[in-house]
Amino acid sequence: MRDTPYGGNALGMVVKEVDFPPGFGLHTGNIGIKDHTNDVMILAAPPGTVAAGVFTKSRFSGPSVTLSRAHLEDGRARAVVILSKNANVATGEVGDANAREVAELTASVLGCATDEVVVASTGVIGVQYPMDRIRRYMGRLATEGISAFEQPGSATSAATAIMTTDTHAKVSIARAGSARVVGIAKGVGMIEPDMATMLAVIATDAAVEPSALDTIFRRVVDRTFNALSIDTDTSTSDMAVVLCSQTAGPAEESAFEAALHQVCLDLTRQLAADGEGAETLIVVTVFQARDDALAKRVAKFIVNSPLVKTAVHGRDPNWGRVAMAIGKCYDQDILPERITIRFGPDEVYPAPATKDRLARLERYLESPEVHIRVGLGIPGEKSDSYGTGSFTAYGCDLTDGYVRINADYTT
Amino acid sequence: MRDTPYGGNALGMVVKEVDFPPGFGLHTGNIGIKDHTNDVMILAAPPGTVAAGVFTKSRFSGPSVTLSRAHLEDGRARAVVILSKNANVATGEVGDANAREVAELTASVLGCATDEVVVASTGVIGVQYPMDRIRRYMGRLATEGISAFEQPGSATSAATAIMTTDTHAKVSIARAGSARVVGIAKGVGMIEPDMATMLAVIATDAAVEPSALDTIFRRVVDRTFNALSIDTDTSTSDMAVVLCSQTAGPAEESAFEAALHQVCLDLTRQLAADGEGAETLIVVTVFQARDDALAKRVAKFIVNSPLVKTAVHGRDPNWGRVAMAIGKCYDQDILPERITIRFGPDEVYPAPATKDRLARLERYLESPEVHIRVGLGIPGEKSDSYGTGSFTAYGCDLTDGYVRINADYTT
Repeated sequence: MRDTPYGGNALGMVVKEVDFPPGFGLHTGNIGIKDHTNDVMILAAPPGTVAAGVFTKSRFSGPSVTLSRAHLEDGRARAVVILSKNANVATGEVGDANAREVAELTASVLGCATDEVVVASTGVIGVQYPMDRIRRYMGRLATEGISAFEQPGSATSAATAIMTTDTHAKVSIARAGSARVVGIAKGVGMIEPDMATMLAVIATDAAVEPSALDTIFRRVVDRTFNALSIDTDTSTSDMAVVLCSQTAGPAEESAFEAALHQVCLDLTRQLAADGEGAETLIVVTVFQARDDALAKRVAKFIVNSPLVKTAVHGRDPNWGRVAMAIGKCYDQDILPERITIRFGPDEVYPAPATKDRLARLERYLESPEVHIRVGLGIPGEKSDSYGTGSFTAYGCDLTDGYVRINADYTT
Repeated sequence: MRDTPYGGNALGMVVKEVDFPPGFGLHTGNIGIKDHTNDVMILAAPPGTVAAGVFTKSRFSGPSVTLSRAHLEDGRARAVVILSKNANVATGEVGDANAREVAELTASVLGCATDEVVVASTGVIGVQYPMDRIRRYMGRLATEGISAFEQPGSATSAATAIMTTDTHAKVSIARAGSARVVGIAKGVGMIEPDMATMLAVIATDAAVEPSALDTIFRRVVDRTFNALSIDTDTSTSDMAVVLCSQTAGPAEESAFEAALHQVCLDLTRQLAADGEGAETLIVVTVFQARDDALAKRVAKFIVNSPLVKTAVHGRDPNWGRVAMAIGKCYDQDILPERITIRFGPDEVYPAPATKDRLARLERYLESPEVHIRVGLGIPGEKSDSYGTGSFTAYGCDLTDGYVRINADYTT
């Protein structure tokens, strides 16, 4: 990120040491899947933990996604195991069997049932896991038992172990009454979650019923991880999981949802700001829309437009490109004469440009976070009112760095 | 383009001097809209010329699009005037009046009706035309009259006059019996035509009825200009117009359509290869699909994926990214186990990689044109057959050059 030290992010925050809530155990280590950096993370949850997950809709999704979706159907889980540096995608029947075996090995380490284990995996596509190494490693872990697990586990260590091309660990914490909500996430490219998400794990000691948790989590994900787009590419491995250990006692539902929303939104902003090659976090808010769905479509067109992304990168107050991106939404309610466009505090359309404002705009575009606000001006049901639909999307600028990272990253 | 001289393109072709068919007059010149390069082109067609056009569906389209669509409704036209370096988009009622005045001024130069003039314009958004200069220029042209027009006009000069950030002129010619079909086009960025197209003008002396012309042109555009995507951004100014002067007498309809298709496809490939910053033309063919629409969706996902585009740029045989892009098409008929992926002549999925093949692939990816072929393997109606839907999409790699051009291009 521009002008921020390693370990910081576009929001100027420094990554803190954050622990998972009491009762969660953590193991991180190196299996040697690709190199000598950590590539395995196991988060163990206490008995009685309630869980929910959302997954990629990709038709090329891997066996981790299929398996974990099935294992979360009963709304219960005891562990999440994440292998990084290999996605185990497009690996055929051997890949399916390997994903099942990873769940079995983890279950035997923890003494839980295989269907209580959630498996996630990201990295290269089309290559088999090094199963010999994984078996040897898990065998050793089973021998060491509980001593191989930190308690309380460091969420920062966990977030570091699941990184691929991320430049720093992404963690977030919030409180809901006496309960804590702690989240970790990874992902910098191949990110446009679509009713699903990249890799994120949220652990909380709040007590929430399975059905309520699922509803709340989907609502939160829709406004956070699903509002994120780094490069319009949807991963084959996206997954977000929330684990509620219930040990802190019942949480007031709206307080819990607010805390969960805060953690997921914070992680979303960290992911956007750490997009591959990114130097600027772009936040696009569309309001005065007929409904939220229309606002989301327009916001996504803007945040995904390579011409908007490069204009922000070039600190160019080129609002014409935002107009172009709005125009891509072929909806009869979108009329140029109703629309207003703001960059930060300043209206740029239809207000005519003044020298003062252009100078202010150029200064504004130097900041590490750029807000674009679009009022669609669609009339509401009452006279003199506007439609109440709105949506905020999160993305980043398109830089030479993105091209270099992805042109040079080898299979 | 890589390893090709200025004036050439990715297909290794050198731009030839091509003339418009007899009967068409051409004027090109400099009004001074932005700088001293040519920025006006008027193509005059003889009386009785039949015409058809397709236009951008952008909700932020400019008055040139609205006006020209209305003027082509009767299937007749006498002139196309194209102003470059200014799009006249998002310019309000003043912009509307200016577009009408450009048509009126052109009509008075040529002595035709205003509604026989097609107006097109590309360049910066949100800035008014310099109308004083345009009026002075057109006044002078009216005095000079026919002497200001070349006949036969050079299509190469015309294509040069409409360039913005294009690196070379795009022209193409084909024959249908005794008739000639000559096309010009421009456009390097903000290109994903959607049932419309970028700027293209095709002039022919073939005799074709207005209603047949419209049907044929739409069919051709769907498989050529609409199969093109440089950066997923849809211009506010896209327009493709065909003018048939009728002077070469009736053309056999299928021969005419074949010639028109050849010219439009050639221009499409030239546009893709000259995409902003592009070094490689990417051609994606999807076949064995349920229908053409599904094949088109999948082909567009692949050709638009920034990760596929950067992999091609980095000469990386990373077929996993093609699998990822296919996965973005959430269609129940798409199953990984049915799919085959080829890079050039070589199957890369599901066939396992061999050392020989990897070496061959790396050599193949050095070429200035990369073909990706995806068989969806969806069963057809008869047993042992596959679906007959197919589509070919045209795009280019994503390079540091694209970022630099669009980050540095100022309003």
